[in-house]
Amino acid sequence: MDIDRLKSIVGEDYVREDIADLYIYGSDASVHHAMPQVVVKPGSIEEIREIARYANSEGIAIVARGAGSGMSGHAVPLKGGIVLDMKRMNHILEIKPEDMYCRVEPGVIDDDLNRALKPFGLTFPPSPASSRIATIGGEIGNNASGIRSVKYGATRDYVLGMKVVLADGELVNLGARTRVEAAGYQIHRLMVGSEGTLGIIVEATLKLIPLPKFRCLGVSTFDKLEDAGNAIADIISSGSEPSMLELMDDIAISAVNTTLNLGLPEVEAIIFFEADGKVKEAVDFEIENMKTICEKHNGTITATSYDAKERTKYFSGRKKLFAALSKYKEGYACTSLADDMAVPYSKMAECARKIHDIAEKNGVIMTAYGHCGSGVMHTKILMNPNDKEKWEGAQRAVEEIYNYVDSVGGVTSGEHGIAISKAPAWKKARPDLMKVMSKIKKALDPNNILNPNKLMDAPDNWYTATQIRYDVKK
Amino acid sequence: MDIDRLKSIVGEDYVREDIADLYIYGSDASVHHAMPQVVVKPGSIEEIREIARYANSEGIAIVARGAGSGMSGHAVPLKGGIVLDMKRMNHILEIKPEDMYCRVEPGVIDDDLNRALKPFGLTFPPSPASSRIATIGGEIGNNASGIRSVKYGATRDYVLGMKVVLADGELVNLGARTRVEAAGYQIHRLMVGSEGTLGIIVEATLKLIPLPKFRCLGVSTFDKLEDAGNAIADIISSGSEPSMLELMDDIAISAVNTTLNLGLPEVEAIIFFEADGKVKEAVDFEIENMKTICEKHNGTITATSYDAKERTKYFSGRKKLFAALSKYKEGYACTSLADDMAVPYSKMAECARKIHDIAEKNGVIMTAYGHCGSGVMHTKILMNPNDKEKWEGAQRAVEEIYNYVDSVGGVTSGEHGIAISKAPAWKKARPDLMKVMSKIKKALDPNNILNPNKLMDAPDNWYTATQIRYDVKK
Repeated sequence: MDIDRLKSIVGEDYVREDIADLYIYGSDASVHHAMPQVVVKPGSIEEIREIARYANSEGIAIVARGAGSGMSGHAVPLKGGIVLDMKRMNHILEIKPEDMYCRVEPGVIDDDLNRALKPFGLTFPPSPASSRIATIGGEIGNNASGIRSVKYGATRDYVLGMKVVLADGELVNLGARTRVEAAGYQIHRLMVGSEGTLGIIVEATLKLIPLPKFRCLGVSTFDKLEDAGNAIADIISSGSEPSMLELMDDIAISAVNTTLNLGLPEVEAIIFFEADGKVKEAVDFEIENMKTICEKHNGTITATSYDAKERTKYFSGRKKLFAALSKYKEGYACTSLADDMAVPYSKMAECARKIHDIAEKNGVIMTAYGHCGSGVMHTKILMNPNDKEKWEGAQRAVEEIYNYVDSVGGVTSGEHGIAISKAPAWKKARPDLMKVMSKIKKALDPNNILNPNKLMDAPDNWYTATQIRYDVKK
Repeated sequence: MDIDRLKSIVGEDYVREDIADLYIYGSDASVHHAMPQVVVKPGSIEEIREIARYANSEGIAIVARGAGSGMSGHAVPLKGGIVLDMKRMNHILEIKPEDMYCRVEPGVIDDDLNRALKPFGLTFPPSPASSRIATIGGEIGNNASGIRSVKYGATRDYVLGMKVVLADGELVNLGARTRVEAAGYQIHRLMVGSEGTLGIIVEATLKLIPLPKFRCLGVSTFDKLEDAGNAIADIISSGSEPSMLELMDDIAISAVNTTLNLGLPEVEAIIFFEADGKVKEAVDFEIENMKTICEKHNGTITATSYDAKERTKYFSGRKKLFAALSKYKEGYACTSLADDMAVPYSKMAECARKIHDIAEKNGVIMTAYGHCGSGVMHTKILMNPNDKEKWEGAQRAVEEIYNYVDSVGGVTSGEHGIAISKAPAWKKARPDLMKVMSKIKKALDPNNILNPNKLMDAPDNWYTATQIRYDVKK
């Protein structure tokens, strides 16, 4: 690695090679770890092109990184090489309210963008839970989505176009600025969710939509988890259009009560339902419909409110759930080994119960929660991460839950991506997809420099084949 | 070509080789023509795989064809070979109202699908104007959209997954059945709009949405075309959410009045605006907002109605416009040489005027109309198709209008695809895209058998390089 060459491209201040920095850049929000050789912080498209040309000629890996909030290992540099920290490129280049789009650099943070859009009455709606730190580039790389995906979809639904630096340093303009387009391969759509393996996203044109004027949140408790699951399926199939439809099971409830002292009722499940819109009567209509369906499935409505402060209070348990799960029990870690499967709505109740059964069988704790309105069932595995037996139990549990998900027509990842953690289950479920993906990868990155050893090229057993960032007493 | 082999695959009844059939299958709704060597009508995925394996081993072209309603030459077999008529595969395989999706064979007709969905209160909303005959496979191949794309988007927004036969006969399952997904390359998204050049779509899983309960249409006339264009831009940037927002200019009005005797007011422009939804108050709100904006831009509201029959009556001029344009003047043809550009909303008024100016300068008639709410400006070139000079004028007009579209950040095709007709302008506007597309094409279809000589491989000047289906006195 010619560090001096990299310094000559971006400037000495923007190249990091001391061990502490490299160690930090070896992690993201997943359980994995690997050391890069160098961290480079480019400030322009031309710098990125030059870095790519150099790396491509030498066969050096490049891992483009936003906030590192990915939970499956996207930003962990399994083959060392260069980590490209994109956060300096954080400019909103253009907001065009009259044409309902904006152009941004990849390092722009989601919440910052939405703050800038608010005065125009506009929003970029995918908002993953990590929107406070997540960058647009990372969200595109991972096709991120969040609590409002049931109504507003995922990142893929808002990327009109982008500029991408390919592995060989070529810069291409993809997509358009117009709402519809039928002009050639939709390669920008292929780039969304490609996890940094096909190109480095250096600019994005995003579709914007009007902010809703009214938003109403409701809360319903359920004595039985199945009732909550069935209520969710029924809400969706009734034609209701929630802007959010979230589930929390008893483990999730207990976690937020224990760590945040929220005093939520200790029931088997809580559903949060929300509607939004421009006209209050339409929001009322959706809320009434969802209340009725919850009650039909033995739910008890404990709150509904249009008030922003009240909504924030009611929802705080769900909002802070990930943090709460991380502190569930002294010495436990909250791992994202199986964490964001999606299943057909009609399987929601069954899936939640399966998660509990499989966890119990394998001696770990698993919680069922998430954006069930868009078919996403979240889970986390809570365990003592220093105990080898727990890792083995977790791996068995992961395999069993993904076998179930596959058997009901679900998908390994609805939201957080494949990267390293989900690769074993996903490769097993989709062998035909691997071949086509590899052909495309090879066509666009023949020297395999862009985020190598991820997705179809990730290890079949990362537990034995890579480092994890806990000290496991094997 | 081993016709007997093809007969042994699909059965003798489903292979056509007589000259009359071949001639018919040499055309679609474009101006182009080319003779295939044989027409094959497969009935199953396995048959298609076998045909692909044979064609791939011999380097024979395959053009998969739905209704042939494409206007840019998608289904015209420029390299001869096999036309694969997909219309036998017209089964709706599954409608899952509880999971909000359906699975269909590619030959299912759009209107047939929507008729089958109606009892469940569901719809597949892209509806191009040709929905009476267009097949789902063709709509996916072309990323079709239509009058409601301003609210509901294009086909790309509704394809959750698909089965595709690749050039080598491999069958792959792409995408998922769930609403969100972040599990590997979104190759199904790449297939949407790839115009039959990357794979043969043999099954699709489509996202469904609830049918709206209320729908209200409004009509506004304008003495000045610019006022109408500005009203459209203002409606969109006001945050209004029309379910339809259509423009017709004076030429379009005159065409429907002359040929259909509709008695529309002979003004410079008419806007049709529509809102839909579950709650009447919300629809009223949108309609009132759009009325106010039209009036602010000197529009006169001539009708608004919730009544289905009245709406059909008011809208019939727009609905039948393409047919009317085809009969605009004795001996004239309505050609789709430049016909569906998209421009940013703020350029709508200017674009409409440009179309008229450029037409006049080049001695042809061009009309400005279309789904302006989603940024699509339609035009058609009306001329005597037997006159060589008119073709030359048309070609100059096409070049000028696309130069303009490119200069304002627009896109060559918003809706009807590139295929042959739009290729010259599009290739000129997007040279960087060509290289990436060619890499992907080569990776998935190395022998170039799938719909060859289209898109990036289409002739730079189809007028001299291919046949057109009119008798031009050169």
